[in-house]
Amino acid sequence: MTEDKYPSRVDGAAAILHRADPVIHGGGPVACEVLTPKALQNYEQRGYLFLESFYRSDEVEVMQEELTRLRNAESVRQSELAVTEPASGEVRSIFATHTVSDVFAALSRDERLLGIVRHLLGGDVYLHQSRLNLKPGFRGKEFYWHSDFETWHTEDGMPAMRAVSCSIALKDNLEYNGPLMVIPGSHKYYCQCTGRTPEYHYQQSLKKQDFGVPSDEQLQWLVDQSEIVVPKGPAGSVLLFECNLMHGSNSNITPSARSNAFFVFNSTENTLRKPFASEHERPWYLANREPEPLAAMDFRGTMAATVAQSA
Amino acid sequence: MTEDKYPSRVDGAAAILHRADPVIHGGGPVACEVLTPKALQNYEQRGYLFLESFYRSDEVEVMQEELTRLRNAESVRQSELAVTEPASGEVRSIFATHTVSDVFAALSRDERLLGIVRHLLGGDVYLHQSRLNLKPGFRGKEFYWHSDFETWHTEDGMPAMRAVSCSIALKDNLEYNGPLMVIPGSHKYYCQCTGRTPEYHYQQSLKKQDFGVPSDEQLQWLVDQSEIVVPKGPAGSVLLFECNLMHGSNSNITPSARSNAFFVFNSTENTLRKPFASEHERPWYLANREPEPLAAMDFRGTMAATVAQSA
Repeated sequence: MTEDKYPSRVDGAAAILHRADPVIHGGGPVACEVLTPKALQNYEQRGYLFLESFYRSDEVEVMQEELTRLRNAESVRQSELAVTEPASGEVRSIFATHTVSDVFAALSRDERLLGIVRHLLGGDVYLHQSRLNLKPGFRGKEFYWHSDFETWHTEDGMPAMRAVSCSIALKDNLEYNGPLMVIPGSHKYYCQCTGRTPEYHYQQSLKKQDFGVPSDEQLQWLVDQSEIVVPKGPAGSVLLFECNLMHGSNSNITPSARSNAFFVFNSTENTLRKPFASEHERPWYLANREPEPLAAMDFRGTMAATVAQSA
Repeated sequence: MTEDKYPSRVDGAAAILHRADPVIHGGGPVACEVLTPKALQNYEQRGYLFLESFYRSDEVEVMQEELTRLRNAESVRQSELAVTEPASGEVRSIFATHTVSDVFAALSRDERLLGIVRHLLGGDVYLHQSRLNLKPGFRGKEFYWHSDFETWHTEDGMPAMRAVSCSIALKDNLEYNGPLMVIPGSHKYYCQCTGRTPEYHYQQSLKKQDFGVPSDEQLQWLVDQSEIVVPKGPAGSVLLFECNLMHGSNSNITPSARSNAFFVFNSTENTLRKPFASEHERPWYLANREPEPLAAMDFRGTMAATVAQSA
């Protein structure tokens, strides 16, 4: 049985533990121009990298069209892959996008992204999860603060902190449309959460998170150590963040929807075990148990070829 | 019977009407240094004035201490003047602060504020409403978009657009703690709202607004004409906005509470009639029906004297 370095969903008092894993798992020379020494130091200390306008507008356009196709596809809307807003019934997320979309499958293997991620995680990576987040305008609900790793560890059996989340903005992330907020440096601490995981928790937690969230005192402590930062930028910007970074977002009453393509890269040496604090495993589209190392490809070139072909 | 220039809470289709009242009611020379020709033009065209750091930190401190006193006073908490968060029970607003606090009574008569307001409204003014908004951290709920005037007209019987709202920041208004958002220029349009006002609507609407809010189409139209602006600034900053300006705020999951002292100044020539679209009048602490022209006083001087006395 794998040792549990990060116990959570505990009865009684919840502590803040020190991180027990490195932040950057790769060593040696960096074969990727984005990862300057300064960028690497930033990622190590603050737990995220914001790459403004990483994708060009023609690339973003291809992603946006694919998003529109998926959100309108009745087969997707009716499937278990789609999560809807509690009140309005609008599509809020689509999971396992790499299984229903050639565009997002190719994007998840983009050599420019994989070069960065493979260095940060030290070798081969696979997709733990992929999804599209569509934060609708007018009535977009908040996502309360959480560490992704806490959920993946307790509910999916991810043993160590050796994964990276990647959020690609498909619409402009503005200060007022419920952008992601992060607490730099929080990835170095693990907030134990209280309360046993309810059975089939994921069916509720994807709509509104009640378990697996920090206490007010823990959150206040993390912010007191650091600050809150809101990475903003035009569509095509990329936020790479360490799997244990505390993040969340406020609601969005503005007419500007906020959509992101989201990929979770996990090291092939960090594959899932039995969940550490849950009876049942979550479904395949939330937690991939068939790791297949991602082979890099030329996303930009492929897209250009596709567009040229269909023109 | 007073003519209804602004029918709302209508059955069926809701229109966007043109404003039928001037924005600036005063004329002649301006006896107030804040109201430069540019500031006046701004207010006329955009519907608000943001005065960064208008109050000094020692003045803000006095206000903050008074806020703490009021929120902890059991007599206030238990009274009809206090509104609590639906979920947590925390105090969200305290009304009629000028009746329970010498500090806020004096602040509402501050000569520096009244000089501006009297010019904008063209003569004597009185307090239509006063309140403290305490947007708690962690679980601060959103306020959906609305025009204050639409409510004051339909539910309180305010005949014309001749009032100004004044929000004084008691904590820093940051980009991420649910700051007020405004749509510049929206004060020139009146969005009719659909649906009859439910009886005793105010008991619910102060917690969550369902009636008296614009449709998605109306809101989109207003934003398309203009933009969304988020006036931010340190504690002590003042936002003066025209009573019909469309505004709202997102939720606040950060630990930083956002508190504001809020005063509504109405022209003594614009006193309340029978509500235009509601059976019952709202209570005195929401809609003052005993207008008493405000006499200016030296807030800064009085506070300094008080502080000196108690020292």
